[in-house]
Amino acid sequence: MKTDPHSVAALKQALQRLPGVGPKSAQRMAFHLLERDREGARQIGEAIQQSLSKVNHCRRCNNFSESDLCPICESDKRDPRVLCVLETPADLEAIELACIYRGMYFVLMGHLSPLDDIGPDQLGINALLKLVEEESVNEIILATNLTLEGQATADFLLDLFQDKNVKVTRLARGMPMGGELEYMDPATLNQAFADRRSA
Amino acid sequence: MKTDPHSVAALKQALQRLPGVGPKSAQRMAFHLLERDREGARQIGEAIQQSLSKVNHCRRCNNFSESDLCPICESDKRDPRVLCVLETPADLEAIELACIYRGMYFVLMGHLSPLDDIGPDQLGINALLKLVEEESVNEIILATNLTLEGQATADFLLDLFQDKNVKVTRLARGMPMGGELEYMDPATLNQAFADRRSA
Repeated sequence: MKTDPHSVAALKQALQRLPGVGPKSAQRMAFHLLERDREGARQIGEAIQQSLSKVNHCRRCNNFSESDLCPICESDKRDPRVLCVLETPADLEAIELACIYRGMYFVLMGHLSPLDDIGPDQLGINALLKLVEEESVNEIILATNLTLEGQATADFLLDLFQDKNVKVTRLARGMPMGGELEYMDPATLNQAFADRRSA
Repeated sequence: MKTDPHSVAALKQALQRLPGVGPKSAQRMAFHLLERDREGARQIGEAIQQSLSKVNHCRRCNNFSESDLCPICESDKRDPRVLCVLETPADLEAIELACIYRGMYFVLMGHLSPLDDIGPDQLGINALLKLVEEESVNEIILATNLTLEGQATADFLLDLFQDKNVKVTRLARGMPMGGELEYMDPATLNQAFADRRSA
């Protein structure tokens, strides 16, 4: 016998659209929202509706934005000659929190992933090319993740910009601050030795 | 510099109301919904709205229901003389899927948990007492989970019904089907030996 009311079953089904949420977690979430936190449920519904209607992409850097240009692209305090290319808004936030970079950004909103049908078109590579050509960009910093997909994406971009008149750099690779040799993986140690510098 | 548009920040905040979802998961979910699955986001919002407006509790068994009485309580094919007391709708679903029980249910919607301010009132114990008194219930099966909280809840209910004229039973405890002695915990083995039966 089906025991869930129709709208509870639909809620459990819908929650499984969230990444990392399977049938059991969805069940726990639905129970929690309906039995213990209806106010929270209302907030989630409201926030989804608001963001769906308001959030789009910045025309220039492709990051999420509620306006045509995001605050960073609109700012006159940023250096437009340096362009940092990132995978996600979360990466951008991490760099902004570190307060070490004053250039501009371009957010790919993902990485190349043929299995998921994410190719150059989905990442807005054309818009990136156009941006580099139209604005006086001197340096492109490829700051994708050091994962397989991130590195493949960076390699692809490196190829693209090789014959353009622009310097392309990548973030330094090596031991993270606070890292202990004992716990480092071989690939990181390898990189740290290969890129060692004079003390 | 704050880098998220206001409505994205609000969405990340709201998603943290879901159980087991912290800042990082919420960020991943918000990114996924806005960048990869706007249709899924619409479905979640819709399902939340629908269930908030439609789902209430069955007047008799306290389970989620869209009508005054849930289909099980309304059915004339169930035996009203046996009442199975459970913690959650998920437990009820598991029993219904097993197709072994034809009696009625009462769903506590939780277990006693003084730290979370969940006492007898929050579990609808008064409604349960009234139900047992008004209907001709012969047997109450206490089928709470075999966790500390579930067992404390069952002990509390056992005390309540001790001087009422009703038989109170609990589910058998022992080795689960397919279980291997080698991997059983001591408490389960202890119970399996104590409740051993003639072969």
